[in-house]
Amino acid sequence: MHALTRESLAATAAELVDAVRRRGPRVHAITNTVAQTYTANLLLAAGAVPSMTTSPDEAAVFTASADALLVNLGTFDAERRSAIPAAIAAARAKPIPWVLDPVLIDRSPARAAFARLLATEGPAAIRGNAAEIACLGEVPGVVAATGTVDVIAEGCRRVALANGVPAMAKVTALGCAEAALVAAFLAVGDDPMSATAAAILAVSVAAEVASEGAAGPGSLAIGILDALANLDRATLLARAKVQ
Amino acid sequence: MHALTRESLAATAAELVDAVRRRGPRVHAITNTVAQTYTANLLLAAGAVPSMTTSPDEAAVFTASADALLVNLGTFDAERRSAIPAAIAAARAKPIPWVLDPVLIDRSPARAAFARLLATEGPAAIRGNAAEIACLGEVPGVVAATGTVDVIAEGCRRVALANGVPAMAKVTALGCAEAALVAAFLAVGDDPMSATAAAILAVSVAAEVASEGAAGPGSLAIGILDALANLDRATLLARAKVQ
Amino acid sequence: MHALTRESLAATAAELVDAVRRRGPRVHAITNTVAQTYTANLLLAAGAVPSMTTSPDEAAVFTASADALLVNLGTFDAERRSAIPAAIAAARAKPIPWVLDPVLIDRSPARAAFARLLATEGPAAIRGNAAEIACLGEVPGVVAATGTVDVIAEGCRRVALANGVPAMAKVTALGCAEAALVAAFLAVGDDPMSATAAAILAVSVAAEVASEGAAGPGSLAIGILDALANLDRATLLARAKVQ
Repeated sequence: MHALTRESLAATAAELVDAVRRRGPRVHAITNTVAQTYTANLLLAAGAVPSMTTSPDEAAVFTASADALLVNLGTFDAERRSAIPAAIAAARAKPIPWVLDPVLIDRSPARAAFARLLATEGPAAIRGNAAEIACLGEVPGVVAATGTVDVIAEGCRRVALANGVPAMAKVTALGCAEAALVAAFLAVGDDPMSATAAAILAVSVAAEVASEGAAGPGSLAIGILDALANLDRATLLARAKVQ
Repeated sequence: MHALTRESLAATAAELVDAVRRRGPRVHAITNTVAQTYTANLLLAAGAVPSMTTSPDEAAVFTASADALLVNLGTFDAERRSAIPAAIAAARAKPIPWVLDPVLIDRSPARAAFARLLATEGPAAIRGNAAEIACLGEVPGVVAATGTVDVIAEGCRRVALANGVPAMAKVTALGCAEAALVAAFLAVGDDPMSATAAAILAVSVAAEVASEGAAGPGSLAIGILDALANLDRATLLARAKVQ
Repeated sequence: MHALTRESLAATAAELVDAVRRRGPRVHAITNTVAQTYTANLLLAAGAVPSMTTSPDEAAVFTASADALLVNLGTFDAERRSAIPAAIAAARAKPIPWVLDPVLIDRSPARAAFARLLATEGPAAIRGNAAEIACLGEVPGVVAATGTVDVIAEGCRRVALANGVPAMAKVTALGCAEAALVAAFLAVGDDPMSATAAAILAVSVAAEVASEGAAGPGSLAIGILDALANLDRATLLARAKVQ
């Protein structure tokens, strides 16, 4: 397992961008009500196939016919609290990779306790901001702490990405949608760590491209979908900033 | 009841586009959480007036003061399972036309059973993709199977539309919103079959117009709203492709 | 407390636009599922920090760490009916200002009764269209009735704003998002009446700017986010229309 250099990560990202377009992995996304539409659109823009039901009696069935699962805790209602364990059990039984996004657990003790329990269920990757990741404590697997610099780590392996633009913080659901794309990349990639980093790189580079034509956060959000759908190897290789 | 030729369908579509703008029919849309915002925006762009509550104790009241009802099964939660029969009963009592969109019933047996039951409650039109329509089995009324070619049928009558662009499949909720527009057109049209076909034609032609100025799926989704708001008779007549 | 002239209101709006950008007030928004995404994006575009959970066991915790609260009745489900009183109690205990948006209470008796009860719990401001405000009856505090002309009143004080464009009515959730921005402005302003009027002025002027570059309701919705993020004192002073 070689180190993630700038060139190798950009090349992996280009390969996985192509693989998602070619293979159209199904991603079942149990995510919050604020993020659902943008998440579905970002998955579609990348070539993946989203499903998003949160019904407890459907989550397992949909997950069983999917290629990856996203569990986002941003809407923490009774339905999702019941559907999430069923979906994770279905993901583990198949098995398919699943991603945990512990949204705002630093502001909700009940949510934090739930997230810590889920973290023991073998997520292939966890994505959150620094406060959320810190709140989660020590966890196994790939951990991506996103921010101005995104740090992706797995045991002793570590890569830091400096792509993206500050205005990304003004687009709601972008981080949530990025976590869904991590799930799509895990579905087609071999190495969870490089697949996670590649998905984050793809979104960040798409945001850079989009920001050049954007007049503000509204057009940036739309432009990211366009740029992701058109993202190519040359752009990834030219723009990747690995620290 | 004359056959739906290219000219007659385009003319009907132009008339119903105008009628929706002039009369502003109220459409109560019980739809999934992913599609709600885009559906409301598409109805507004066309000149209709959406309401979207899914509360069991409000669905009948809102439907009773509406001009058409949409029932979309994409979010299959306890609340909607309770609200939908109440809304359909209110629609039948008034009576106003209602549309069934059996989202992803081919991937959920529970949802398929529910949809088959609803299909006996006299929907004026049913819209789905080929897999969903096949899963539903034999049903009365107008049935629209959308895809690369959209086939709208009612008994022995049948029309096939070849409008639209492949990138429509990259815009989440577009099919769901289209079904809501079918409801709006049914509210102002006399013949359910031509009203259904006209609504689908209007969305498909708007997508063609929008795709010419779109840089990807993000701007396509926005452009469809703009194009639908500006759609005119000449564009419909020039672009309609009836097979 | 001086009268709200054109110049003083525009100046106050410019100050509060800056204050929101500088201080980034947290707004907890309990709002309807149709409006959540656009509301979050509009708050972010203005520089505020949204949270949107509707879980009864989280609403109080999130409100307690927020700077203002929005209560929008557009989705009237069991969860929100339970979460809203808990959130209002937390807002009053802290205390932070809270805003009531009585969406469509004129079409739902159950919702109207609930809204009238909430109106006795000391909202800093209430925002609705004329029919909703009329349905609410006599209430204390700032009341904003939005429409072609927006009338903001508090006891004997009254200001009428004639900004905005008709196409705003074609953008779903714009009024709901505007009410959330009122909450953000209340968090940083001293006088509830001028803060309410300033927020409505900011959105209306942003809509005017956006409409000049918009091709229809889709691009208008996106352009409003861009224009709000870029709104400056000169534009507010030049465009404010106070009657």
